Amino acid sequence: MWVSIRTNIRVAAAAMTSLNDALQTALRGGAVSGLFTVAMSLLGVGGLFAALSAMAPAGVSQAEWAQDIPFLIVGYGFGASFVALFAQLGGGIYTKAADVGADLVGKVEAGIPEDDPRNPAVIADLVGDNVGDCAGRGADLFESTAAENIGAMILGVLLFKSFGINGILFPLVIMALGLICSIVGVMVVKTKEDADPMKALNFGYYVTAALVTVVFFFASRTLLQVADAPDAWWHYFLCGVIGIVTSILFVFITQYYTEYRYRPVLSIAEASQTGPATNIIAGLAVGMESTVLPVITIGIAIISSYSLGQSSGLVNDAGVAIGGLFGTAVATMGMLGTAGYILAMDVFGPITDNAGGIVEMSRQPESVRDKTDRLDSVGNTTKALTKGYAIGSAALAAFLLFSAYLDEVRNLTGQTLRVDLSKPVVFVAGLMGAMLVFWFSSLAMTAVRKAASSVITEVRRQFRERPGIMQGTEEPDYAACVDIVTVGALKAMILPGALVVLFPIVIGVVFKRFGGPGEYMGAESVAALLMVATITGILMAGFLNNGGGAWDNAKKYIETGAYGGKRSEAHKAAVVGDTVGDPFKDTAGPSLHVLIKLLATITLVLAPLFI
Amino acid sequence: MWVSIRTNIRVAAAAMTSLNDALQTALRGGAVSGLFTVAMSLLGVGGLFAALSAMAPAGVSQAEWAQDIPFLIVGYGFGASFVALFAQLGGGIYTKAADVGADLVGKVEAGIPEDDPRNPAVIADLVGDNVGDCAGRGADLFESTAAENIGAMILGVLLFKSFGINGILFPLVIMALGLICSIVGVMVVKTKEDADPMKALNFGYYVTAALVTVVFFFASRTLLQVADAPDAWWHYFLCGVIGIVTSILFVFITQYYTEYRYRPVLSIAEASQTGPATNIIAGLAVGMESTVLPVITIGIAIISSYSLGQSSGLVNDAGVAIGGLFGTAVATMGMLGTAGYILAMDVFGPITDNAGGIVEMSRQPESVRDKTDRLDSVGNTTKALTKGYAIGSAALAAFLLFSAYLDEVRNLTGQTLRVDLSKPVVFVAGLMGAMLVFWFSSLAMTAVRKAASSVITEVRRQFRERPGIMQGTEEPDYAACVDIVTVGALKAMILPGALVVLFPIVIGVVFKRFGGPGEYMGAESVAALLMVATITGILMAGFLNNGGGAWDNAKKYIETGAYGGKRSEAHKAAVVGDTVGDPFKDTAGPSLHVLIKLLATITLVLAPLFI
Repeated sequence: MWVSIRTNIRVAAAAMTSLNDALQTALRGGAVSGLFTVAMSLLGVGGLFAALSAMAPAGVSQAEWAQDIPFLIVGYGFGASFVALFAQLGGGIYTKAADVGADLVGKVEAGIPEDDPRNPAVIADLVGDNVGDCAGRGADLFESTAAENIGAMILGVLLFKSFGINGILFPLVIMALGLICSIVGVMVVKTKEDADPMKALNFGYYVTAALVTVVFFFASRTLLQVADAPDAWWHYFLCGVIGIVTSILFVFITQYYTEYRYRPVLSIAEASQTGPATNIIAGLAVGMESTVLPVITIGIAIISSYSLGQSSGLVNDAGVAIGGLFGTAVATMGMLGTAGYILAMDVFGPITDNAGGIVEMSRQPESVRDKTDRLDSVGNTTKALTKGYAIGSAALAAFLLFSAYLDEVRNLTGQTLRVDLSKPVVFVAGLMGAMLVFWFSSLAMTAVRKAASSVITEVRRQFRERPGIMQGTEEPDYAACVDIVTVGALKAMILPGALVVLFPIVIGVVFKRFGGPGEYMGAESVAALLMVATITGILMAGFLNNGGGAWDNAKKYIETGAYGGKRSEAHKAAVVGDTVGDPFKDTAGPSLHVLIKLLATITLVLAPLFI
Repeated sequence: MWVSIRTNIRVAAAAMTSLNDALQTALRGGAVSGLFTVAMSLLGVGGLFAALSAMAPAGVSQAEWAQDIPFLIVGYGFGASFVALFAQLGGGIYTKAADVGADLVGKVEAGIPEDDPRNPAVIADLVGDNVGDCAGRGADLFESTAAENIGAMILGVLLFKSFGINGILFPLVIMALGLICSIVGVMVVKTKEDADPMKALNFGYYVTAALVTVVFFFASRTLLQVADAPDAWWHYFLCGVIGIVTSILFVFITQYYTEYRYRPVLSIAEASQTGPATNIIAGLAVGMESTVLPVITIGIAIISSYSLGQSSGLVNDAGVAIGGLFGTAVATMGMLGTAGYILAMDVFGPITDNAGGIVEMSRQPESVRDKTDRLDSVGNTTKALTKGYAIGSAALAAFLLFSAYLDEVRNLTGQTLRVDLSKPVVFVAGLMGAMLVFWFSSLAMTAVRKAASSVITEVRRQFRERPGIMQGTEEPDYAACVDIVTVGALKAMILPGALVVLFPIVIGVVFKRFGGPGEYMGAESVAALLMVATITGILMAGFLNNGGGAWDNAKKYIETGAYGGKRSEAHKAAVVGDTVGDPFKDTAGPSLHVLIKLLATITLVLAPLFI
């Protein structure tokens, strides 16, 4: 956040000389914050590992102790998830409550333009943009990398016999080298004055992906080459490639569903001609449809990386193949290898958005404004991309975290846990998991609506009690609105936050009673809850994110002049869709990413409770 | 449909004498059609059982043959599901496409009132009401009773050692006696002139439920009392009571979320003040929240009836308790015991709706119109109730049909199948199942939008080419609109219909390859797909049905004068929500009920393919 605020003005200044300068400044500003986030997460996990390594208890060999460490670091992942939930959910509620509240009372009731300084909620709205987009997404990817590194390390423990400590350290090595690849990717981005800046950003992404592939090749060959499974290293290298390809496909699919060059957004714009109702129906249908291709991609990625891992030649003492889950872990690492670059692109969005605002307010010539406008529209796309990428990596990593949980249960009980949905109790737990996702989404959207209505009440009060505001003779009390929206967001966060933490605990502790001796029904029920909630959460998040993004760009498409352009009936209908989409794509959807991972880490940390 | 059309006019005539006469006429008209549907379903299953009983192959004893019959009748359930899908989905698309199309071009563009005879689409709209509501819901409950009877009979086969043929016949006996209870329930309904007709209908429902409880007591004691498990009969009697209580709770919960006496609908009405966008957000949030209590109810019902069944004292040769699943089956029977009465209440809805139209058109005095209006608003509630009941029974029955599938797989392979979500391939199949629900919902909503737009094009063409229509001098071509919406609905049905049938087959056949020898990965994957699709489908259907119903009644509440009443801005916003809710509650939601059951029967019939 600190970085992005300071970069805004530099981008505005750079836009006065050339598009290339502006693009590079914005992206590098984003990169500072993006790479910092990933690096901090890596330092946290790596530092804890190093610190704990030095603290082996007496009588435990260094090798044995190294196998215990990943289970101890789990608490770090849980802490990161917990903070991320509040950053993402609270930030999302904050930004959208301020946005919706300021717009409804300002534009609709008082008839003053958007971002007019007479609107007492305008400062809260601007603050919200940074709180939600930068802090929220940063916290999301921070905990993603943390949780997934830990999950992969736990799977590495399983293969300790074959790989030794290399298997545990492999994820950290990949992440560290991936950061360097991202830096190179950011450095090579440049654009001509008249070219599409998105192409330049995509080029930088391909360079990063290609470099990560090379890194994977050497890291696999160095760390994962062992005598008793000579094929293992290249099997895992291919798993990494699967992860990289998956992330590229997710970027393409998200673009297809949220850019107005393609059918989905155009169908929403077309439906806007017959009013807000058909616009909403079309947007909901596009959002639901947009889950199909990502799920198929993830399905293929999970199965193929698992199969490659299984056939790697790694076997346990009984001769059974055990490398499969590590294969999905490596694919996740491949997907997360480009996280630094993706996050740089994400922060690029708010930076260009605010740079445009600065250019506008400081009355620069048309040509400068044109440059920042082009960068701003690219920024909208990159923001949507990051969400697609985040949900993709959450889906791929889900399996990693389940496996970590199942391992933890095996360590505690000495039994391999199955998660058998055909048992009625387990099925009911799964049903509860899916319900949790619907409940949480409902609470997140209601929270936005309620916090927005408290903003509306305050703005109305100020307008009524101090008539000088509307005449421009009196300054509105901006601070009161900031306070209200802050308190509102914090209050609205309590119920969904408590729900996520308490629900799995209650299910685990209550359902424990239904099992016979040696059945571990509590642990099995929690696993079913976790898995079905993850499945439903992935779909619901995709639906909410892409639906919201598609509505936003359908409105933008109409603003380019289609179907009557601005001020037409179609545009009014599209604005309704856009407003509905706001809590979809900026509050409920991204909070579900965190929900999925928080459920995974909370069950992992509290596993002993359920046994 | 035939019955309901003929009853309309009698209700209109009866309303001229008294409210009680009108109520009784409408309910009994509904009962003829409702009881006929359930009776036909029962006759089909019972008749097939009787016919097949007489055809035991040479060398197979009558007792052994009776155990095979339920598996043979499965094809009947599949056929019923298949027809129901087309009746429900096609009917839903038909009715809403005609409705949305007629309204948008007539009310919005041409500025003529709703149901104005100058609108060429008005006949298609009126036809659609009957097609969607009566035919669709009837087909839905027809196949529900068929599929669930067959599922329960299959579970009865498992207990053949204890109960003999009684266990197989028990479901049929309960359904037959339940029909008689429903008839009594319908007969006792009467109301005073100034009382709330809903209370009278609820009283009839309680009478039916009480009678079904008595029937359960005697049927369990007669058919399920066996020497080696003396407690079994009253355990199963309690399971039946659980089912009856569940159905009553579902009726209450649906009322809470869709009637404007309670908080959820009021919150939507309140949000309408700030425009259509907040109305939509509030409606979506209410729809999502409305899944919570039903899921908890179903969870408790499944676990408690399963536990009661497990502790019934029935054991297999190895001494393991095996009566649990039959317990959930009996609970489902309890829930379906009142199906006749529920369906009578459902058909009551369109009858009173059309009776109101007849009274309006034939210019009856205000007092008569007032009576039919009161019945009409009750009819809206009963229509919502049936959907809640249908999804509740689908959820409870889901387990029945899974178990039938697992039994079929055991019969084919000789192994008990687990559905272990912790296997990556099985997890991916589950993910695909959830995705199928989102995809199907998207297709259903898009189908409505597309068919509606073909209606709009046709109406615009007629207005343009034949200007006499608007002046009232020329009769519009009603038939052309009926044709277009029929063809449109049939065409739009192809893709979602094919998807439901082909998707599980493709998954089963492809995923079969991923298993090692003796793993039956195809069958296990299909089971996971079925179960997760059922979970997601239950939630999505609840979300769509209740959200749609809540929007509808929020609009009705504003029409009573709240927030400015008709023609206010709040009312306009509420109309947008209502229009979005139409394909939710009348197309996508009810079609999902059928989707769930069709998936179950299709996998059951095609189980040999997946092995």
